[in-house]
Amino acid sequence: MLIGKTAHFGTERQLHAIDPSSGLPIEPPFGTGTTADTDTACTLAQQAFDSYRETTLEQRAQFLEQIATNILEIGHALIERAMQESGLPQARLEGERGRTVGQLRLFAKVVRDGRFLDATLDSALPERAPPRPDLRLRKIGLGPVAVFGASNFPLAFSVAGGDTASALASGCPVVVKAHSAHPGTSELVGKAIQAAVATCGLHEGVFSLLFGDGNIVGQTLVSHPSIKAVGFTGSRQGGVALMRAAAQRKEPIPVYAEMSSINPMFLLPDAMANGARKIGAAFIDSLTMGAGQFCTNPGLVIAMEGGDLTAFSEAAGEALQAKVAATMLTPGIHAAYTKGVEQLAATAGVRLLARGQVATGPCGGQATLFITDAATFLATPSLEDEVFGACSLIVSCNNIAQFRQVAEHVAGQLTATLFLTAADHAAAKQLLPALERKVGRILVNGFPTGVEVSHAMVHGGPFPATSDSRSTSVGAAAIDRFLRPVSYQDIPADLLPASLQDGNPLGLWRVINGDLVQA
Amino acid sequence: MLIGKTAHFGTERQLHAIDPSSGLPIEPPFGTGTTADTDTACTLAQQAFDSYRETTLEQRAQFLEQIATNILEIGHALIERAMQESGLPQARLEGERGRTVGQLRLFAKVVRDGRFLDATLDSALPERAPPRPDLRLRKIGLGPVAVFGASNFPLAFSVAGGDTASALASGCPVVVKAHSAHPGTSELVGKAIQAAVATCGLHEGVFSLLFGDGNIVGQTLVSHPSIKAVGFTGSRQGGVALMRAAAQRKEPIPVYAEMSSINPMFLLPDAMANGARKIGAAFIDSLTMGAGQFCTNPGLVIAMEGGDLTAFSEAAGEALQAKVAATMLTPGIHAAYTKGVEQLAATAGVRLLARGQVATGPCGGQATLFITDAATFLATPSLEDEVFGACSLIVSCNNIAQFRQVAEHVAGQLTATLFLTAADHAAAKQLLPALERKVGRILVNGFPTGVEVSHAMVHGGPFPATSDSRSTSVGAAAIDRFLRPVSYQDIPADLLPASLQDGNPLGLWRVINGDLVQA
Repeated sequence: MLIGKTAHFGTERQLHAIDPSSGLPIEPPFGTGTTADTDTACTLAQQAFDSYRETTLEQRAQFLEQIATNILEIGHALIERAMQESGLPQARLEGERGRTVGQLRLFAKVVRDGRFLDATLDSALPERAPPRPDLRLRKIGLGPVAVFGASNFPLAFSVAGGDTASALASGCPVVVKAHSAHPGTSELVGKAIQAAVATCGLHEGVFSLLFGDGNIVGQTLVSHPSIKAVGFTGSRQGGVALMRAAAQRKEPIPVYAEMSSINPMFLLPDAMANGARKIGAAFIDSLTMGAGQFCTNPGLVIAMEGGDLTAFSEAAGEALQAKVAATMLTPGIHAAYTKGVEQLAATAGVRLLARGQVATGPCGGQATLFITDAATFLATPSLEDEVFGACSLIVSCNNIAQFRQVAEHVAGQLTATLFLTAADHAAAKQLLPALERKVGRILVNGFPTGVEVSHAMVHGGPFPATSDSRSTSVGAAAIDRFLRPVSYQDIPADLLPASLQDGNPLGLWRVINGDLVQA
Repeated sequence: MLIGKTAHFGTERQLHAIDPSSGLPIEPPFGTGTTADTDTACTLAQQAFDSYRETTLEQRAQFLEQIATNILEIGHALIERAMQESGLPQARLEGERGRTVGQLRLFAKVVRDGRFLDATLDSALPERAPPRPDLRLRKIGLGPVAVFGASNFPLAFSVAGGDTASALASGCPVVVKAHSAHPGTSELVGKAIQAAVATCGLHEGVFSLLFGDGNIVGQTLVSHPSIKAVGFTGSRQGGVALMRAAAQRKEPIPVYAEMSSINPMFLLPDAMANGARKIGAAFIDSLTMGAGQFCTNPGLVIAMEGGDLTAFSEAAGEALQAKVAATMLTPGIHAAYTKGVEQLAATAGVRLLARGQVATGPCGGQATLFITDAATFLATPSLEDEVFGACSLIVSCNNIAQFRQVAEHVAGQLTATLFLTAADHAAAKQLLPALERKVGRILVNGFPTGVEVSHAMVHGGPFPATSDSRSTSVGAAAIDRFLRPVSYQDIPADLLPASLQDGNPLGLWRVINGDLVQA
């Protein structure tokens, strides 16, 4: 564990990563933390907050860039360890490292731009009755943030992932609880951040990394009075537990939990008439990518019954049967996937359409495609449960009105997808209002599994997709999660933060008396 | 009650407003609503949401302005009824009406500007590997909002107050639960909104007004699946109950509860050396304004012991003794105030410094000033409890370090105030980081009771001042509370909302590939 500038071997218990391709432990062991370790990390983070949030924008951007540099400097050792611990292939992890580094650099740009500060000035109007005071608003960080690393992105949504990068960008110190599936990867990345803290001359409490159990380190972290927000990516059960713990604190705090989503795809009639087989084959590529272990995996397909759906299903089935069972991330995830598939297979009105190749290793996930009809889907709540992995359910509809019924029926989702042609636009217009209410991102003629890290991305959505639909956990707007506004009234010039001073020394975009200006 | 375009006399029970100056009921009676009435209002709101959120910015702005016009057209009847029901004087209520109307017009401007949409576009990069899709983000309303009217601003934070105005501005239908202390005022204002809905040709479900009990209408409202957010101003007990109810829903929703605050004022030594008596007298004016019934009432004064504090206390005491006991808003508020003052008087280490004139009417609030020392304050948690009304506590410190201790000790607040001169800046710099962490607004050499409705105002702060420190309930930024982002990926041009179309038909400020532009 990395607590401030120190390294500790935790004394609570020993933890081994498991190689999911063999099911065997990987050396060395890691020591998990105690309640006292957690308290130390949180207290250091609290001590770091005042100085860290007043770093200049340039200092903070350089710190984020230094983390990126340090991660790249680990070299192939990082990829190798992540491959061992996650079972993910080299190319995928190299891509994910690029995404992680790119994400840190994007937030460095966001910090330099300074628009996230929402600097806003209202001039004094001393002659008005009553006089208007001088008012100036900026945003500051919420305070220390607890980040829970995700299993399915051991780099891009773990120790230096999107939650950490956006929290550090906002001026918040971070205490990470590493995911127990990849402690070695977590340690390597944690050291890269720890070294960047030192290089940039920041307070050591800006970053700590803990190993530990949910009921010791996790609960202590969320309950600690110094922690002011939580970032989490994982199961609905885990996310809801964090939401409850945070709501029951003496001082409730925001939780940004990205949880479960089945990402419905609506295949509109004319699009199917013009390419059912092509869409079917491409759908299987999206479904099985990374053993289906994406939050945005397409787990629900809505289409009209008939010949085009038969063609889609046949093409999908053929493509699926050719797919090798990829190693899943952990034995636990593999077991949950197997159980979820069994439950679907046993559900009345659900029929197995096709399976991928039989697994050989202990954690191989055999891809699976089911089909049911809209009446069964609408009447069977369990069919909405996410099966994390390469499993999807086709819902066959009698008429286009059932598309709308399904759209209105499903709970909050990260994404919804429409396959359409110009002839389908009228039907799409009927669906879009419902989809806007239900999801964070609407796609046309693509697959939801690619999540671009950019300015206009929303990786979020209404509950249970996330705990807080007002936010995104991917992309530039993720920084907004960890900010709150503070207003300064009649503050003398030399006590004002630079972002709010007369003459705009930082050259920021600011709203002045209601108008957006940069001058 | 006004449910959509209809008016109902509720059948649950009968409710009379009480004239607090006499303690007698005011005719006519109002009928409170049932669970079924609440359900009808929420369902109508849900039905209105799709069309209301797609009104043009101009339509929505005109609707807000029409509400303002209709409120003014009620004329003196509104002021008269509000005076009867609240005990507040005519000038105050006329000022509050101006604030209410000004608030609606400010949000009309905010809507026309369209910056709240956060329109953001990332161009497709088809040549990149992997290709980047076309991504466009805008914000939409969360859905129907439940607003609980406040007792202490029967116009500006009630039926057409800040919560309603900002929710309507964001594109969310509103269901208001009227405060039972001013049903007649609520009905008059509700009819003004209902008429504006009709004039503007909007879906009747955009606005409903319910009378009712917290355990029937209030709980049903917060638990209703169509309601997607809550706005509330009132007691900590009431706000915390709403937070818990919202967190326990099948789909948890955000609650914006503005609750309790004691608004510490730090009187720095040189400011006191240069004007202790003047600050003391002015402080009493702020403390007793509106019978002290402001969220931002200065309930805690921190100063150094010694001659300057004696001078301050004497001046404050003299000013206080001249203050007539003003009629408080309701018998319940008056009783709670009396009890709070008694508890303070009975607290060990707390001394009564001065009282205002003895009350004559049944709800007269006799202003009260207490003093204690920092050691007692730090050791006695109950001294942090808000006594809603014209009651304040001076905390006398031995040394300047105790100022910082008090600042670190207090819970979240709406405001903190510093009285200072240039000679106090060094001490102020020590205090400011702690105050930023604790409060939503920091003032210098003024009193917190004036809350400007403008762009840079923050009327918010960490728990227990509010349920959500990321927001303000007063000022232009209040609109952000009721919005969430949606991203549109590769959506054909004729399915895109106008705010995101090529060529920027609305002339909005937009972020394009990371740069803020208006073209």
